[in-house]
Amino acid sequence: MDTLDHPAREALPIGHAVWQAVRADAVRVAAQEETLTAFLHETVLAHDRFADALWALLVRKLACRIMPAERLGRPVADAMADDPAIVASAAADLAAILARDPAADSALTPFLYFKGFHALQWHRIAHWLWGKGRHDLAHFLQSRVSEAFAVDIHPAVPVGRGVFIDHGTGVVIGETAVIGNDVSILQNVTLGGTGKEHGDRHPKVKDGVLLAAGAKVLGNITLGARSKIGAGSVVLKDVPPCATVAGVPAKVVGWCRDDAAPALTMDMSLQQADYSI
Amino acid sequence: MDTLDHPAREALPIGHAVWQAVRADAVRVAAQEETLTAFLHETVLAHDRFADALWALLVRKLACRIMPAERLGRPVADAMADDPAIVASAAADLAAILARDPAADSALTPFLYFKGFHALQWHRIAHWLWGKGRHDLAHFLQSRVSEAFAVDIHPAVPVGRGVFIDHGTGVVIGETAVIGNDVSILQNVTLGGTGKEHGDRHPKVKDGVLLAAGAKVLGNITLGARSKIGAGSVVLKDVPPCATVAGVPAKVVGWCRDDAAPALTMDMSLQQADYSI
Amino acid sequence: MDTLDHPAREALPIGHAVWQAVRADAVRVAAQEETLTAFLHETVLAHDRFADALWALLVRKLACRIMPAERLGRPVADAMADDPAIVASAAADLAAILARDPAADSALTPFLYFKGFHALQWHRIAHWLWGKGRHDLAHFLQSRVSEAFAVDIHPAVPVGRGVFIDHGTGVVIGETAVIGNDVSILQNVTLGGTGKEHGDRHPKVKDGVLLAAGAKVLGNITLGARSKIGAGSVVLKDVPPCATVAGVPAKVVGWCRDDAAPALTMDMSLQQADYSI
Amino acid sequence: MDTLDHPAREALPIGHAVWQAVRADAVRVAAQEETLTAFLHETVLAHDRFADALWALLVRKLACRIMPAERLGRPVADAMADDPAIVASAAADLAAILARDPAADSALTPFLYFKGFHALQWHRIAHWLWGKGRHDLAHFLQSRVSEAFAVDIHPAVPVGRGVFIDHGTGVVIGETAVIGNDVSILQNVTLGGTGKEHGDRHPKVKDGVLLAAGAKVLGNITLGARSKIGAGSVVLKDVPPCATVAGVPAKVVGWCRDDAAPALTMDMSLQQADYSI
Amino acid sequence: MDTLDHPAREALPIGHAVWQAVRADAVRVAAQEETLTAFLHETVLAHDRFADALWALLVRKLACRIMPAERLGRPVADAMADDPAIVASAAADLAAILARDPAADSALTPFLYFKGFHALQWHRIAHWLWGKGRHDLAHFLQSRVSEAFAVDIHPAVPVGRGVFIDHGTGVVIGETAVIGNDVSILQNVTLGGTGKEHGDRHPKVKDGVLLAAGAKVLGNITLGARSKIGAGSVVLKDVPPCATVAGVPAKVVGWCRDDAAPALTMDMSLQQADYSI
Amino acid sequence: MDTLDHPAREALPIGHAVWQAVRADAVRVAAQEETLTAFLHETVLAHDRFADALWALLVRKLACRIMPAERLGRPVADAMADDPAIVASAAADLAAILARDPAADSALTPFLYFKGFHALQWHRIAHWLWGKGRHDLAHFLQSRVSEAFAVDIHPAVPVGRGVFIDHGTGVVIGETAVIGNDVSILQNVTLGGTGKEHGDRHPKVKDGVLLAAGAKVLGNITLGARSKIGAGSVVLKDVPPCATVAGVPAKVVGWCRDDAAPALTMDMSLQQADYSI
Repeated sequence: MDTLDHPAREALPIGHAVWQAVRADAVRVAAQEETLTAFLHETVLAHDRFADALWALLVRKLACRIMPAERLGRPVADAMADDPAIVASAAADLAAILARDPAADSALTPFLYFKGFHALQWHRIAHWLWGKGRHDLAHFLQSRVSEAFAVDIHPAVPVGRGVFIDHGTGVVIGETAVIGNDVSILQNVTLGGTGKEHGDRHPKVKDGVLLAAGAKVLGNITLGARSKIGAGSVVLKDVPPCATVAGVPAKVVGWCRDDAAPALTMDMSLQQADYSI
Repeated sequence: MDTLDHPAREALPIGHAVWQAVRADAVRVAAQEETLTAFLHETVLAHDRFADALWALLVRKLACRIMPAERLGRPVADAMADDPAIVASAAADLAAILARDPAADSALTPFLYFKGFHALQWHRIAHWLWGKGRHDLAHFLQSRVSEAFAVDIHPAVPVGRGVFIDHGTGVVIGETAVIGNDVSILQNVTLGGTGKEHGDRHPKVKDGVLLAAGAKVLGNITLGARSKIGAGSVVLKDVPPCATVAGVPAKVVGWCRDDAAPALTMDMSLQQADYSI
Repeated sequence: MDTLDHPAREALPIGHAVWQAVRADAVRVAAQEETLTAFLHETVLAHDRFADALWALLVRKLACRIMPAERLGRPVADAMADDPAIVASAAADLAAILARDPAADSALTPFLYFKGFHALQWHRIAHWLWGKGRHDLAHFLQSRVSEAFAVDIHPAVPVGRGVFIDHGTGVVIGETAVIGNDVSILQNVTLGGTGKEHGDRHPKVKDGVLLAAGAKVLGNITLGARSKIGAGSVVLKDVPPCATVAGVPAKVVGWCRDDAAPALTMDMSLQQADYSI
Repeated sequence: MDTLDHPAREALPIGHAVWQAVRADAVRVAAQEETLTAFLHETVLAHDRFADALWALLVRKLACRIMPAERLGRPVADAMADDPAIVASAAADLAAILARDPAADSALTPFLYFKGFHALQWHRIAHWLWGKGRHDLAHFLQSRVSEAFAVDIHPAVPVGRGVFIDHGTGVVIGETAVIGNDVSILQNVTLGGTGKEHGDRHPKVKDGVLLAAGAKVLGNITLGARSKIGAGSVVLKDVPPCATVAGVPAKVVGWCRDDAAPALTMDMSLQQADYSI
Repeated sequence: MDTLDHPAREALPIGHAVWQAVRADAVRVAAQEETLTAFLHETVLAHDRFADALWALLVRKLACRIMPAERLGRPVADAMADDPAIVASAAADLAAILARDPAADSALTPFLYFKGFHALQWHRIAHWLWGKGRHDLAHFLQSRVSEAFAVDIHPAVPVGRGVFIDHGTGVVIGETAVIGNDVSILQNVTLGGTGKEHGDRHPKVKDGVLLAAGAKVLGNITLGARSKIGAGSVVLKDVPPCATVAGVPAKVVGWCRDDAAPALTMDMSLQQADYSI
Repeated sequence: MDTLDHPAREALPIGHAVWQAVRADAVRVAAQEETLTAFLHETVLAHDRFADALWALLVRKLACRIMPAERLGRPVADAMADDPAIVASAAADLAAILARDPAADSALTPFLYFKGFHALQWHRIAHWLWGKGRHDLAHFLQSRVSEAFAVDIHPAVPVGRGVFIDHGTGVVIGETAVIGNDVSILQNVTLGGTGKEHGDRHPKVKDGVLLAAGAKVLGNITLGARSKIGAGSVVLKDVPPCATVAGVPAKVVGWCRDDAAPALTMDMSLQQADYSI
């Protein structure tokens, strides 16, 4: 149960800063809200390191009768021990949510309560298994994540750091998609295939892209860096970097104005005239 | 376990009429369908009053290993005892479903089986907690509701009476949104922010509005009373009272013709010529 | 516990071929992936016949404290014994997924892991109950399926063979809808009513139709055989056979070019010029 | 789930009379004691026949995460279908308890609440498995019974009809013991081996024997018909029929006076002068 | 969930002193032993009053699938509210254990860990139900206590204050027994009937009696105040006050020498010469 | 989850021989008895080393809602890593059972099914905690073991190797007792204190002692090496080495005749004339 003790003894453990923030919030809340005290001890205060707490959180979320915690925990521990980028990316994701979401009023909230965060961290484990050729266990995890969080990401998909899946329900990402760094994805977004071939058939999402609620992006196309995909859009062609697209089918309706990537500001607004009623 | 015994001893208890209808259906079904008999005794027939049954239903739906029934039940009981409008609104919601949904063929069905109803009643508890400054427990409940029912409503959102969330999957409602009375909301509706600022940034939905499946409404805009938002629409500007809007971005395509609010008739049709193929 | 032993003793049992393929995959994976070995024994290797394994899978997926396996299993067994088409349709659905989905790399994967498949097979049980006049138990099952898989199909809906509900999250199908054979339905598709009347008010989907992600089809209209409904479309009028429609509201943007139904190729592409950005 | 439907369709089912008594009590109690209503529906009122209810009771009592109801129920159903004496003996045991125990004030009480009864019926299943050469599953059941009820009977032991294990805690019965008909066994009774050899090394208990609390009977000796073994006795030699023995080591202290076997009257008294303080 | 709030608001709540001791120990241990922190918050630290904590402890210990916490908790709350002697006796029992048991090194230990204590407090609830004529629910509880703790006390038995059931396994106490104050009962003690009649047929245990391990006391006899029943004894006749009895059958082997009742000193020794090997 | 990987990598792991025997039996049974296949994979076949399997077995046996596997497993892993004698003693215990018990017909049976074995191995963990000053967690484990297996051993008690607790129900061993090597203890044996003082007050059991069913041994006395304590005896004074004692109070009735310790032959017979009826 303690395998997570090995890495990074010498230096500060991965995710140290964000974990200190989560723990500080938990200390405060455990004292104020008695209903949550035992829960917070188990989920946060019992763990000195982010990696330990993340491991326990993930296992607790998906363990079930037919895949109990003692069995489910092993591949998670193996993945975290083998690839430190898994825990580091999780810490970056958590920091990203805190920076972007006005509703995340404490570091505790996204760690414990955002199912998009939970789904993405499980995906990182499944993706590690996929890379090791353990496709069947990876599919098992994909399936449990889809049941538990309504987020369905194929385990083959590489996902960058600082990614925020907000709300999560209905998100579907297909086998040959690629997700860059600093991307924000809202509920009911589909990154789908066109079904025409068995090869490379899903979107490539570059750094800093914002995919607003309900956007459907289909086929082996590229969403350029810092582009913004409007809510409810259907995107069937490449989107240039920095462009804002909207509509069914989506057209360019604007461009990013300054240095801030739309994924970081979470600005869902669409500037073009055509978008006034 | 019995705190719910206090209010309204002298008069008929809140929700008396609708509860008598639910119980009568349960008596009939318990005699006909043996597979459900024990279930109906536990969920309906054991309870003389609507408030007791609602309390037990809510606790049963969200209790889990890490937040067992005996702990989870307490804030629900506290909220119901403190604010009788919670139970009264739930009774009004149930009556609204019976009046609006052709598929709700018995009073039993929505009470026991409609996860949109369950999610909304839990939201009323979370919103009460939010009002008391207990934000952390409110977020805990929001998170469990999102996992269990795929409905994600920020606990700060005030919601009126007679509201019907139909099917529920994928509904997301942001922090500064406001929902009036007699509103109907279908699956995959988003009432989202534009992300530009941390202040008031979500829609205000007036009385009698119908939000059809998959509608995305973004920003601090107002949906006027008795307006109808077409399925799959993306709404970025205020909608006048009584207007029907549709499209991406949404435009006015019609007006309500008579006294009945579209939320009450659940009429999803769109009258304008442009909406013929 | 053994009711499933009666039918088809003399000939090969229903679903024999697909079950042999599933078992062969399970044997291979059980030897390779220790984490899954016990799980595969319980779910696949313990069962000689597809019907037995399907029964056990369905019961395991929905059993809960208030409806334990020993009670829930009975109507499933009754339905399967009474109507052999239930198991046969499940086998056809499984074969259809294997033929259509590039990501289903083994016969095991969709059987164990595709929640759209699980939801559809439960729907077949609920629909059998509905036909027997056991509406209350049917609604119970609809509700549990909606909670567990985020797929909400009214039990009155007849569904053909070879149907593939891919990913499943957010799919809603209303009371008077009809689904033909060889149909493919993606996530967040709504087949909704217009709410104007209590009678026949939902879409009729003919054989071979493909409904891409997020499509909303509303009212008592017909989607002609082999038509394709583009992602994010809102369809309010009949669609001719072989047509491809897209947009909000949806318009015809193409026609099927050859013999293959779009539901079988899963080709989500839209050919018309208007669909270039 | 329905295998129990086959035997005895034409005549009254096995255990009909005692089951009618249990059901009548359950109807009365379900109306009086709301806390038990759902429980009684699940355990008694849902079942028309004794065999069905017994099957469900046994499975519910021992099912656990690692041996869920759907797997555990199969051998029970097989045993009951193969050997009607199992259910018939259970009915005789239940009738025996009602005749003998002053504290069994309703037919419902021993069926639902006497763990000695539950343990014995599970033993009958384990013994059937043992006879079929399925020793490993029999040992599994012996172990679960010992954990759940603190009654430890080796599955090789044949047990007659009308046997009453009262209270049950601490009862241990070794591999080569034999138990006749109409025997009563109280808590903490041991029928042990002397350990000298691997062959026949445990007691043979004839019809109508009463074994009072804490009696230890060791070795391949015979307890004659209608003998009485005093509380706390240690018996190392054969006991003649009709004798009452007591003490450490046990000596004959009396003889049965009339026709009633001590096991039937449950008379624990010891008549000899030596037994006055 | 909050019914326990009513009694004794004005004065110190029942069990205040012992509860302060338990809480103080829990605060200390929660800080030292991380594995127990969440457990101690749920079981002790979340409760200001002994009655609340006792209620939660009892419900948690016996709740199960078929009798969930929300249903089981109600009669416990009713009993505690109706008869304050239940909580007061529990507090006296706890204080008694602390005074008598050298191994109870903190107030926390018997409250949380002594199953004899848990069984006795559940018995007090069952006895209250028995007195209200709710015999069936009382038998249900007796049965669950026997399964969970291997302690089997008929619910009709009145039990005094300051009673200590040490270890508990195998204790059986029959229907017409009576237990006084300040009694100590060790494992495997039987207070049995002689089975001769249906009326008054079990022992009467006066104040201050010590029943050592494995003692069997049979019939409607009286164990005089401050008597001591030696381990493994079989007692068939009245025992005079202050006497020490031992043997099979038990004989007087000594008398209490000073004011201390043997139940309070827990002195199991036997003074007579006959008891030297 | 993998902490158990550290010790003894270079040589054969502890318990290698007995584990190979257990695994071989499991392979055979998993192929023969389908009902047990998944169970055997989880409990035996998934583990290459005895230590891993023992860890998983112990955690699975005692994990519960309030102390889930992920928390309970940690001190077990810590103890096993810190003191290799724990696993080695368990292996010796298992070998001892196989040598002594005629009913243990495969190496699998005692490992999986003997609750005396399970209780003793948990005691070894609790005793390690006691030695580290973690008395509270040790008491927690003692309590859970007493509930789950009806075996109650104070965590302060040192226990030797090759110890066999047969059947286990009702065994109680007090705080200052000491158990040597190669001891056999049957059901309902008490090693109790006389309660006179708080210091050293429980029996010292030397190597090779056999304690037959229901024996009560009280006070700070010594049971000499290779002595035999007859069933139902009450022992209050020292027992010489090699002596057989029996009776209430116990007297010497024989002496061991050859080299074999009675604990190894499990010979419960008593040779003296006085022990003929």
